[in-house]
Amino acid sequence: MRGEAKVTYELEERIMDTFMQAALAEAKQGQAEGGIPIGSVIVHNGRIIGRGHNRRVQKGSAILHGEMDALENAGRQTAAVYRECTLYTTLSPCAMCSGAILLYGIPRVIVGENRTFLGEEELLKSRGVTVDVLQEQECISMMTDFIETGPELWNEDIGV
Amino acid sequence: MRGEAKVTYELEERIMDTFMQAALAEAKQGQAEGGIPIGSVIVHNGRIIGRGHNRRVQKGSAILHGEMDALENAGRQTAAVYRECTLYTTLSPCAMCSGAILLYGIPRVIVGENRTFLGEEELLKSRGVTVDVLQEQECISMMTDFIETGPELWNEDIGV
Repeated sequence: MRGEAKVTYELEERIMDTFMQAALAEAKQGQAEGGIPIGSVIVHNGRIIGRGHNRRVQKGSAILHGEMDALENAGRQTAAVYRECTLYTTLSPCAMCSGAILLYGIPRVIVGENRTFLGEEELLKSRGVTVDVLQEQECISMMTDFIETGPELWNEDIGV
Repeated sequence: MRGEAKVTYELEERIMDTFMQAALAEAKQGQAEGGIPIGSVIVHNGRIIGRGHNRRVQKGSAILHGEMDALENAGRQTAAVYRECTLYTTLSPCAMCSGAILLYGIPRVIVGENRTFLGEEELLKSRGVTVDVLQEQECISMMTDFIETGPELWNEDIGV
Protein backbone atom coordinates (compact mmCIF):
# COMPACT_ATOMS: atom_id res chain seq x y z
CA MET A 1 0.00 0.00 0.00
CA ARG A 2 2.79 2.43 0.87
CA GLY A 3 4.39 1.77 -2.51
CA GLU A 4 1.13 2.49 -4.34
CA ALA A 5 0.60 5.71 -2.43
CA LYS A 6 4.08 6.88 -3.36
CA VAL A 7 3.52 6.20 -7.05
CA THR A 8 0.24 8.15 -7.01
CA TYR A 9 1.90 11.10 -5.31
CA GLU A 10 4.74 11.21 -7.81
CA LEU A 11 2.29 10.99 -10.70
CA GLU A 12 0.35 13.95 -9.35
CA GLU A 13 3.53 15.98 -8.89
CA ARG A 14 4.58 15.21 -12.45
CA ILE A 15 1.20 16.27 -13.88
CA MET A 16 1.20 19.51 -11.87
CA ASP A 17 4.65 20.36 -13.17
CA THR A 18 3.60 19.74 -16.76
CA PHE A 19 0.71 22.19 -16.56
CA MET A 20 2.71 24.83 -14.70
CA GLN A 21 5.39 24.44 -17.36
CA ALA A 22 2.70 25.15 -19.97
CA ALA A 23 1.66 28.29 -18.06
CA LEU A 24 5.33 29.29 -17.86
CA ALA A 25 5.73 28.75 -21.60
CA GLU A 26 2.83 31.19 -22.12
CA ALA A 27 4.49 33.72 -19.81
CA LYS A 28 7.72 33.42 -21.78
CA GLN A 29 5.86 33.86 -25.05
CA GLY A 30 4.36 37.06 -23.65
CA GLN A 31 7.82 38.19 -22.60
CA ALA A 32 9.18 37.47 -26.09
CA GLU A 33 6.38 39.62 -27.53
CA GLY A 34 7.46 42.54 -25.32
CA GLY A 35 4.56 41.97 -22.95
CA ILE A 36 4.04 41.34 -19.26
CA PRO A 37 5.34 37.81 -18.48
CA ILE A 38 2.37 36.11 -16.87
CA GLY A 39 0.84 32.95 -18.28
CA SER A 40 -2.02 30.62 -17.49
CA VAL A 41 -3.64 27.39 -18.62
CA ILE A 42 -7.02 25.90 -17.79
CA VAL A 43 -7.13 22.13 -17.39
CA HIS A 44 -10.23 20.00 -17.70
CA ASN A 45 -9.99 16.30 -16.90
CA GLY A 46 -6.24 16.26 -17.48
CA ARG A 47 -6.36 18.18 -20.74
CA ILE A 48 -5.54 21.84 -21.41
CA ILE A 49 -8.66 23.52 -22.83
CA GLY A 50 -7.35 27.10 -22.77
CA ARG A 51 -3.92 28.76 -22.80
CA GLY A 52 -3.21 32.44 -22.41
CA HIS A 53 -0.85 35.19 -21.43
CA ASN A 54 -1.10 38.84 -20.48
CA ARG A 55 -1.82 40.95 -23.58
CA ARG A 56 -1.87 44.48 -22.15
CA VAL A 57 0.99 45.61 -24.34
CA GLN A 58 0.30 43.43 -27.38
CA LYS A 59 -3.41 44.25 -27.71
CA GLY A 60 -3.65 47.47 -25.71
CA SER A 61 -5.92 45.48 -23.42
CA ALA A 62 -7.08 46.43 -19.95
CA ILE A 63 -8.72 43.05 -19.30
CA LEU A 64 -6.51 40.40 -20.89
CA HIS A 65 -4.49 39.28 -17.90
CA GLY A 66 -3.02 35.81 -18.38
CA GLU A 67 -5.89 34.05 -16.64
CA MET A 68 -8.53 36.04 -18.54
CA ASP A 69 -6.81 35.29 -21.85
CA ALA A 70 -6.79 31.58 -21.00
CA LEU A 71 -10.50 31.72 -20.09
CA GLU A 72 -11.26 33.54 -23.34
CA ASN A 73 -9.24 31.08 -25.39
CA ALA A 74 -11.04 28.16 -23.72
CA GLY A 75 -14.20 29.53 -25.32
CA ARG A 76 -17.75 29.37 -24.04
CA GLN A 77 -18.12 26.56 -21.52
CA THR A 78 -20.95 25.44 -19.29
CA ALA A 79 -20.78 25.63 -15.51
CA ALA A 80 -20.55 21.82 -15.46
CA VAL A 81 -17.21 21.99 -17.29
CA TYR A 82 -15.76 24.84 -15.22
CA ARG A 83 -16.57 22.92 -12.04
CA GLU A 84 -14.18 20.19 -13.17
CA CYS A 85 -11.38 22.56 -14.11
CA THR A 86 -8.11 23.59 -12.50
CA LEU A 87 -6.60 26.94 -13.40
CA TYR A 88 -2.80 27.24 -13.45
CA THR A 89 -1.24 30.67 -13.35
CA THR A 90 2.37 31.76 -12.99
CA LEU A 91 1.37 34.58 -10.59
CA SER A 92 -1.14 34.98 -7.76
CA PRO A 93 -4.45 36.04 -9.38
CA CYS A 94 -5.61 39.65 -8.99
CA ALA A 95 -9.15 40.70 -8.03
CA MET A 96 -10.40 40.59 -11.65
CA CYS A 97 -9.05 37.12 -12.38
CA SER A 98 -10.12 35.84 -8.96
CA GLY A 99 -13.58 37.21 -9.65
CA ALA A 100 -13.69 35.31 -12.94
CA ILE A 101 -12.66 32.14 -11.11
CA LEU A 102 -15.53 32.71 -8.64
CA LEU A 103 -18.05 33.56 -11.37
CA TYR A 104 -17.43 30.27 -13.12
CA GLY A 105 -16.99 28.16 -10.00
CA ILE A 106 -13.52 26.88 -10.89
CA PRO A 107 -12.71 24.87 -7.77
CA ARG A 108 -8.91 24.77 -7.82
CA VAL A 109 -6.12 27.21 -8.62
CA ILE A 110 -2.42 26.38 -8.80
CA VAL A 111 -0.25 29.47 -8.42
CA GLY A 112 3.36 29.66 -9.59
CA GLU A 113 4.32 32.23 -6.99
CA ASN A 114 2.90 34.96 -4.77
CA ARG A 115 6.14 36.60 -3.59
CA THR A 116 6.16 39.44 -6.12
CA PHE A 117 2.38 40.01 -6.00
CA LEU A 118 -0.23 38.65 -3.62
CA GLY A 119 -3.65 38.57 -5.23
CA GLU A 120 -7.03 37.64 -3.82
CA GLU A 121 -6.07 34.20 -2.54
CA GLU A 122 -7.86 34.74 0.78
CA LEU A 123 -11.08 35.73 -0.99
CA LEU A 124 -10.86 32.62 -3.16
CA LYS A 125 -10.27 30.38 -0.14
CA SER A 126 -13.14 32.01 1.78
CA ARG A 127 -15.44 30.97 -1.10
CA GLY A 128 -14.22 27.37 -1.06
CA VAL A 129 -11.62 27.47 -3.83
CA THR A 130 -8.51 25.36 -3.21
CA VAL A 131 -5.40 27.48 -3.79
CA ASP A 132 -1.96 25.87 -3.96
CA VAL A 133 1.13 28.05 -4.25
CA LEU A 134 4.22 26.35 -5.68
CA GLN A 135 6.70 29.25 -5.20
CA GLU A 136 8.51 28.26 -8.39
CA GLN A 137 11.86 30.04 -8.56
CA GLU A 138 11.59 30.55 -12.32
CA CYS A 139 8.27 32.37 -11.92
CA ILE A 140 9.69 34.56 -9.15
CA SER A 141 12.83 35.48 -11.13
CA MET A 142 10.86 36.29 -14.26
CA MET A 143 8.50 38.66 -12.44
CA THR A 144 11.28 40.23 -10.33
CA ASP A 145 13.24 41.07 -13.49
CA PHE A 146 10.15 42.41 -15.23
CA ILE A 147 9.07 44.64 -12.33
CA GLU A 148 12.60 46.04 -12.02
CA THR A 149 12.77 46.98 -15.69
CA GLY A 150 9.15 48.14 -16.15
CA PRO A 151 7.66 49.34 -12.85
CA GLU A 152 5.25 51.79 -14.51
CA LEU A 153 3.82 49.15 -16.83
CA TRP A 154 3.49 46.76 -13.92
CA ASN A 155 1.69 49.33 -11.78
CA GLU A 156 -0.72 50.01 -14.63
CA ASP A 157 -1.48 46.29 -14.85
CA ILE A 158 -2.38 46.01 -11.17
CA GLY A 159 -4.15 49.35 -10.85
CA VAL A 160 -1.51 51.03 -8.68
CA MET B 1 -29.21 78.16 0.03
CA ARG B 2 -32.08 75.72 -0.17
CA GLY B 3 -32.68 76.80 -3.76
CA GLU B 4 -29.04 76.20 -4.69
CA ALA B 5 -29.03 72.77 -3.09
CA LYS B 6 -32.11 71.83 -5.07
CA VAL B 7 -30.56 72.90 -8.36
CA THR B 8 -27.41 70.88 -7.67
CA TYR B 9 -29.46 67.81 -6.81
CA GLU B 10 -31.53 68.04 -9.96
CA LEU B 11 -28.43 68.51 -12.07
CA GLU B 12 -26.88 65.39 -10.57
CA GLU B 13 -30.05 63.40 -11.20
CA ARG B 14 -30.12 64.53 -14.82
CA ILE B 15 -26.48 63.56 -15.39
CA MET B 16 -27.00 60.16 -13.79
CA ASP B 17 -29.95 59.51 -16.06
CA THR B 18 -27.97 60.46 -19.14
CA PHE B 19 -25.22 57.94 -18.40
CA MET B 20 -27.63 55.15 -17.44
CA GLN B 21 -29.46 55.84 -20.69
CA ALA B 22 -26.16 55.37 -22.51
CA ALA B 23 -25.64 52.04 -20.72
CA LEU B 24 -29.21 51.07 -21.65
CA ALA B 25 -28.55 51.99 -25.28
CA GLU B 26 -25.57 49.59 -25.21
CA ALA B 27 -27.78 46.85 -23.72
CA LYS B 28 -30.34 47.39 -26.48
CA GLN B 29 -27.63 47.27 -29.13
CA GLY B 30 -26.54 43.92 -27.69
CA GLN B 31 -30.14 42.72 -27.77
CA ALA B 32 -30.48 43.82 -31.41
CA GLU B 33 -27.36 41.78 -32.22
CA GLY B 34 -28.98 38.68 -30.71
CA GLY B 35 -26.86 38.95 -27.59
CA ILE B 36 -27.39 39.22 -23.85
CA PRO B 37 -28.92 42.65 -23.12
CA ILE B 38 -26.52 44.13 -20.57
CA GLY B 39 -24.71 47.39 -21.16
CA SER B 40 -22.22 49.60 -19.39
CA VAL B 41 -20.40 52.89 -19.68
CA ILE B 42 -17.40 54.25 -17.79
CA VAL B 43 -17.47 57.95 -17.00
CA HIS B 44 -14.43 60.07 -16.20
CA ASN B 45 -14.93 63.67 -15.13
CA GLY B 46 -18.38 63.83 -16.72
CA ARG B 47 -17.31 62.24 -20.02
CA ILE B 48 -17.88 58.68 -21.24
CA ILE B 49 -14.47 57.11 -21.90
CA GLY B 50 -15.68 53.56 -22.57
CA ARG B 51 -18.93 51.96 -23.73
CA GLY B 52 -19.68 48.27 -23.93
CA HIS B 53 -22.19 45.47 -23.92
CA ASN B 54 -22.16 41.75 -23.32
CA ARG B 55 -20.57 39.94 -26.31
CA ARG B 56 -20.87 36.28 -25.27
CA VAL B 57 -22.98 35.42 -28.30
CA GLN B 58 -21.51 37.90 -30.77
CA LYS B 59 -17.85 37.05 -30.14
CA GLY B 60 -18.13 33.64 -28.49
CA SER B 61 -16.62 35.37 -25.48
CA ALA B 62 -16.45 34.05 -21.93
CA ILE B 63 -15.11 37.31 -20.50
CA LEU B 64 -16.83 40.16 -22.37
CA HIS B 65 -19.61 40.99 -19.95
CA GLY B 66 -20.96 44.51 -20.49
CA GLU B 67 -18.71 46.03 -17.84
CA MET B 68 -15.61 44.22 -19.13
CA ASP B 69 -16.35 45.33 -22.68
CA ALA B 70 -16.67 48.93 -21.49
CA LEU B 71 -13.35 48.65 -19.62
CA GLU B 72 -11.69 47.16 -22.68
CA ASN B 73 -13.09 49.85 -24.96
CA ALA B 74 -11.87 52.54 -22.56
CA GLY B 75 -8.37 51.29 -23.35
CA ARG B 76 -5.33 51.28 -21.12
CA GLN B 77 -5.71 53.82 -18.33
CA THR B 78 -3.63 54.66 -15.30
CA ALA B 79 -4.85 54.09 -11.75
CA ALA B 80 -5.12 57.88 -11.39
CA VAL B 81 -7.82 57.94 -14.08
CA TYR B 82 -9.75 54.92 -12.80
CA ARG B 83 -9.88 56.48 -9.34
CA GLU B 84 -11.91 59.36 -10.80
CA CYS B 85 -14.30 57.13 -12.72
CA THR B 86 -17.87 56.00 -12.19
CA LEU B 87 -19.03 52.78 -13.83
CA TYR B 88 -22.65 52.55 -14.95
CA THR B 89 -24.12 49.13 -15.64
CA THR B 90 -27.68 48.07 -16.42
CA LEU B 91 -27.35 45.01 -14.14
CA SER B 92 -25.73 44.30 -10.78
CA PRO B 93 -22.09 43.35 -11.51
CA CYS B 94 -21.03 39.70 -11.20
CA ALA B 95 -17.89 38.52 -9.38
CA MET B 96 -15.67 38.97 -12.47
CA CYS B 97 -16.82 42.52 -13.21
CA SER B 98 -16.76 43.43 -9.51
CA GLY B 99 -13.22 42.07 -9.34
CA ALA B 100 -12.23 44.28 -12.26
CA ILE B 101 -13.77 47.29 -10.48
CA LEU B 102 -11.71 46.43 -7.38
CA LEU B 103 -8.52 45.83 -9.37
CA TYR B 104 -8.66 49.27 -10.89
CA GLY B 105 -9.97 51.06 -7.81
CA ILE B 106 -13.08 52.47 -9.48
CA PRO B 107 -14.76 54.18 -6.53
CA ARG B 108 -18.40 54.33 -7.61
CA VAL B 109 -20.81 52.02 -9.42
CA ILE B 110 -24.33 52.94 -10.53
CA VAL B 111 -26.47 49.85 -11.10
CA GLY B 112 -29.61 49.82 -13.26
CA GLU B 113 -31.23 47.02 -11.28
CA ASN B 114 -30.45 44.06 -9.05
CA ARG B 115 -33.85 42.35 -8.99
CA THR B 116 -33.14 39.79 -11.71
CA PHE B 117 -29.52 39.16 -10.60
CA LEU B 118 -27.71 40.23 -7.46
CA GLY B 119 -23.98 40.40 -8.03
CA GLU B 120 -21.14 41.16 -5.64
CA GLU B 121 -22.46 44.47 -4.34
CA GLU B 122 -21.66 43.56 -0.74
CA LEU B 123 -18.06 42.71 -1.61
CA LEU B 124 -17.71 46.04 -3.43
CA LYS B 125 -19.15 47.96 -0.48
CA SER B 126 -16.91 46.08 1.97
CA ARG B 127 -13.92 47.39 -0.03
CA GLY B 128 -15.14 50.97 0.05
CA VAL B 129 -16.88 51.20 -3.35
CA THR B 130 -20.06 53.28 -3.40
CA VAL B 131 -22.86 51.29 -5.04
CA ASP B 132 -26.14 52.96 -5.99
CA VAL B 133 -28.99 50.86 -7.36
CA LEU B 134 -31.59 52.74 -9.41
CA GLN B 135 -34.07 49.86 -9.94
CA GLU B 136 -34.91 51.17 -13.40
CA GLN B 137 -38.07 49.48 -14.67
CA GLU B 138 -36.76 49.34 -18.24
CA CYS B 139 -33.65 47.44 -17.11
CA ILE B 140 -35.75 45.01 -15.09
CA SER B 141 -38.19 44.34 -17.95
CA MET B 142 -35.42 43.81 -20.48
CA MET B 143 -33.62 41.23 -18.31
CA THR B 144 -36.84 39.51 -17.24
CA ASP B 145 -37.84 39.03 -20.88
CA PHE B 146 -34.37 37.82 -21.82
CA ILE B 147 -34.12 35.30 -18.97
CA GLU B 148 -37.57 33.92 -19.80
CA THR B 149 -36.69 33.36 -23.43
CA GLY B 150 -33.07 32.20 -23.00
CA PRO B 151 -32.53 30.65 -19.55
CA GLU B 152 -29.71 28.35 -20.71
CA LEU B 153 -27.74 31.19 -22.27
CA TRP B 154 -28.27 33.27 -19.15
CA ASN B 155 -27.12 30.46 -16.87
CA GLU B 156 -23.99 30.04 -18.98
CA ASP B 157 -23.25 33.74 -18.61
CA ILE B 158 -23.42 33.64 -14.82
CA GLY B 159 -21.77 30.23 -14.37
CA VAL B 160 -24.89 28.41 -13.19
